[in-house]
Amino acid sequence: MHYGVNYTPSHGWFFTWLNPDWASVEKDFEQIVSLGLDHVRIFPLWPLLQPNRAYINEKAVSDVAQMVHLAGLHGLNVYVDVIQGHLSSYDFVPTWLVSWHDTNMFTDEKAIQAQAHLVKTVYEACEKEKNFSGLTLGNECNQFTDISHPHRHPATAGQIQNWLEALLSPMEKKAHEQGRILVHSENDAVWYEENHAFTPRFAAQLGDVTTIHSWVFNGVAKKYGPLSFESTKHARYLMDLSLAYSDNPQRQVWLQEAGSPLNVMTAGQAPEFCSQTVRAALSHPQAYGVTWWCSHDVSSQMADFPNVEYSLGLFDEHGQLKEVGKAYRDTIARCRDEFEYDENSKQNHDDHHSTTALVVPTRHGEPVMRAAQAAGGSVFTTWMNIAKQGEMPQIISSEKAHDARYCSSRGIHDLVEVQLEAGDAYEAVSDPSLAEKKSQQ
Amino acid sequence: MHYGVNYTPSHGWFFTWLNPDWASVEKDFEQIVSLGLDHVRIFPLWPLLQPNRAYINEKAVSDVAQMVHLAGLHGLNVYVDVIQGHLSSYDFVPTWLVSWHDTNMFTDEKAIQAQAHLVKTVYEACEKEKNFSGLTLGNECNQFTDISHPHRHPATAGQIQNWLEALLSPMEKKAHEQGRILVHSENDAVWYEENHAFTPRFAAQLGDVTTIHSWVFNGVAKKYGPLSFESTKHARYLMDLSLAYSDNPQRQVWLQEAGSPLNVMTAGQAPEFCSQTVRAALSHPQAYGVTWWCSHDVSSQMADFPNVEYSLGLFDEHGQLKEVGKAYRDTIARCRDEFEYDENSKQNHDDHHSTTALVVPTRHGEPVMRAAQAAGGSVFTTWMNIAKQGEMPQIISSEKAHDARYCSSRGIHDLVEVQLEAGDAYEAVSDPSLAEKKSQQ
Repeated sequence: MHYGVNYTPSHGWFFTWLNPDWASVEKDFEQIVSLGLDHVRIFPLWPLLQPNRAYINEKAVSDVAQMVHLAGLHGLNVYVDVIQGHLSSYDFVPTWLVSWHDTNMFTDEKAIQAQAHLVKTVYEACEKEKNFSGLTLGNECNQFTDISHPHRHPATAGQIQNWLEALLSPMEKKAHEQGRILVHSENDAVWYEENHAFTPRFAAQLGDVTTIHSWVFNGVAKKYGPLSFESTKHARYLMDLSLAYSDNPQRQVWLQEAGSPLNVMTAGQAPEFCSQTVRAALSHPQAYGVTWWCSHDVSSQMADFPNVEYSLGLFDEHGQLKEVGKAYRDTIARCRDEFEYDENSKQNHDDHHSTTALVVPTRHGEPVMRAAQAAGGSVFTTWMNIAKQGEMPQIISSEKAHDARYCSSRGIHDLVEVQLEAGDAYEAVSDPSLAEKKSQQ
Repeated sequence: MHYGVNYTPSHGWFFTWLNPDWASVEKDFEQIVSLGLDHVRIFPLWPLLQPNRAYINEKAVSDVAQMVHLAGLHGLNVYVDVIQGHLSSYDFVPTWLVSWHDTNMFTDEKAIQAQAHLVKTVYEACEKEKNFSGLTLGNECNQFTDISHPHRHPATAGQIQNWLEALLSPMEKKAHEQGRILVHSENDAVWYEENHAFTPRFAAQLGDVTTIHSWVFNGVAKKYGPLSFESTKHARYLMDLSLAYSDNPQRQVWLQEAGSPLNVMTAGQAPEFCSQTVRAALSHPQAYGVTWWCSHDVSSQMADFPNVEYSLGLFDEHGQLKEVGKAYRDTIARCRDEFEYDENSKQNHDDHHSTTALVVPTRHGEPVMRAAQAAGGSVFTTWMNIAKQGEMPQIISSEKAHDARYCSSRGIHDLVEVQLEAGDAYEAVSDPSLAEKKSQQ
């Protein structure tokens, strides 16, 4: 099991990459280690790594390796995201993809080749560090395809599959030989948004583990309340939902992002939300780990972030551990004891994992109606209602529900059919104030 | 008189700012000095200087000062452009102005304040260096307003005037006390394109000298031939044209950019084009100087530049002086002797400057028809036809043509009225291949 945090540098936010203050970075790592965490996920900036399609900035690449190295000195493993891409409402797209050179990062063959080359370059720069644990293609690159994006990179699902495979495949053999993981990451539009080009099947089948980004400012907290069962089990639900789309019954699921967003809860509610969310996720038998968003608050000196982004840290801008940080630390400590990985079953221990599974209607391995999976939708509601009784149900696709061997391999004995009904509460855009601002322009 | 070159770093192009190779920069400066030049114009990248609206990256600012300092060690004066902005077909716009944070750099009050703060910061970082000669707001920022721009920052002329004054005014007193210049720069859309928000009046009145960017891939070379009188006198014509819009009869004019673009001429023609263009410009009585574009060829390892951008250097990508470099060196040397500044007349010596002036129809100090000034237009054609007779005519606005004192102060004795007729040859976009690419999307 892996316990970690998404690393947001305390000094200069991700702009620290422009001129890394390594002493400050090491201090940040010390603080992170003090919480009992074992890893960080880090985010270099794409325009610094690859300022021209054919030119990789070696200094920026070596800075990534250096950050991995320093984390290792403090006992932290590191997962590196390559294509940023998108961070906290800001898009970082190299100049060779925009304006006069506008092209589509997902479908332009030369752009795809360049990104694959960058993935390989960053991987190889880090591989000498023992604590380099794996690589994520990038942070929620799927946002660029989304219909709500102000400057879309539209793509079909087939084109996205091609993009994912083009970036993952070249490194798979080496990563597996080295015991490292290669994954990709998306926000919840994958699970909830009709016609979104990144699909549940890609999320659950491509890459070595499935990554989940759970943010209850997606309508769940507003509809049910921030400390409701629905909100605090949202991450866990997504983990279970994702398994419906995997052919591998043992597929592991990484809660790669979850946070306590203060646009839908008070600071006083944040610690409890954190504890319950993390506990529910870590108790999942197939949990790979959890990585909280984020380590350090964004400095109030930085302008124009959506308000919610300033206060997601475990540490505040003065370096003080916040209540949510203590809650995360303490929850992790308890979960380490309670949900110890069982070498025999190859699973984490969980008393609450049900042998009942919801059957979600699928076609060609994809959901028939993603909106039914979203807040207020029938899949979501049925799962929550059963889970409230005490055992969290599994979820299985209609195309696999009658495969006895597969069901058995997942420990599924009972099936609950679900009639599809769309949810009414999903909000696709992470920060309503930005969406509103855009719509007024 | 000032003789210089726009400095394009030989290693890593402007991406050298990501990780400056000072030894390489110094070697470049040595080469530039070897041509007998006295200054460079340098171009930091805006997203590196100001990654967040409220956060200036001190390292990037100090790198600018360091480049100025190193140039000084080699005897070069330096003009610093701040807002890049735009360079060789690439737009560099900070992430706080695009996508979810999309706003207008010219009209958003907070964005204007941030830019003014950046201008001040860069100026003050450089002012301790004696060889810091001045500051240009940015390289052809007017492109962002242009109707042809893929992602416009539209603005009215009034808004542009406000933007120019907001960025220039705070530093004017200090700059003048220190004997430095503050200017702004635009491409020729200012002079030729109807309704372009940057206007001749702003170019000729705001800032300490008028800057001219002369590129004959704007239709002139295609219509008349690259070594035609029209092409080789294009820069000189723009200098004369600009004076029609200045209230100050002694206004100086800086040919801040001119180059030998191989999309409209052969490499064999480039040296002759250079010599004739530079000679005609430097012979202008009010010439401030000339700054060739550019010092070093873009490396062929860099991808996706328009073809024309790879070969504009005086030195090739292997560091060898090109024929055009020799021509520039030799022309400068000859002009130094021939057009020596006359302390008495406060002007450069020019046998070919006429006492005849074309009268260009204006209203409120602006041209009635900018298209008449462009290639093939009546103002352009009339000027060229008179100049071919041996003396280069001046140009005066219709609103000033009957002000005897003003005419006298410019040495204008005879007036030639021009009927307005639009040109047929102006191509607003610098690289037709990019425009074509965009139009096919």
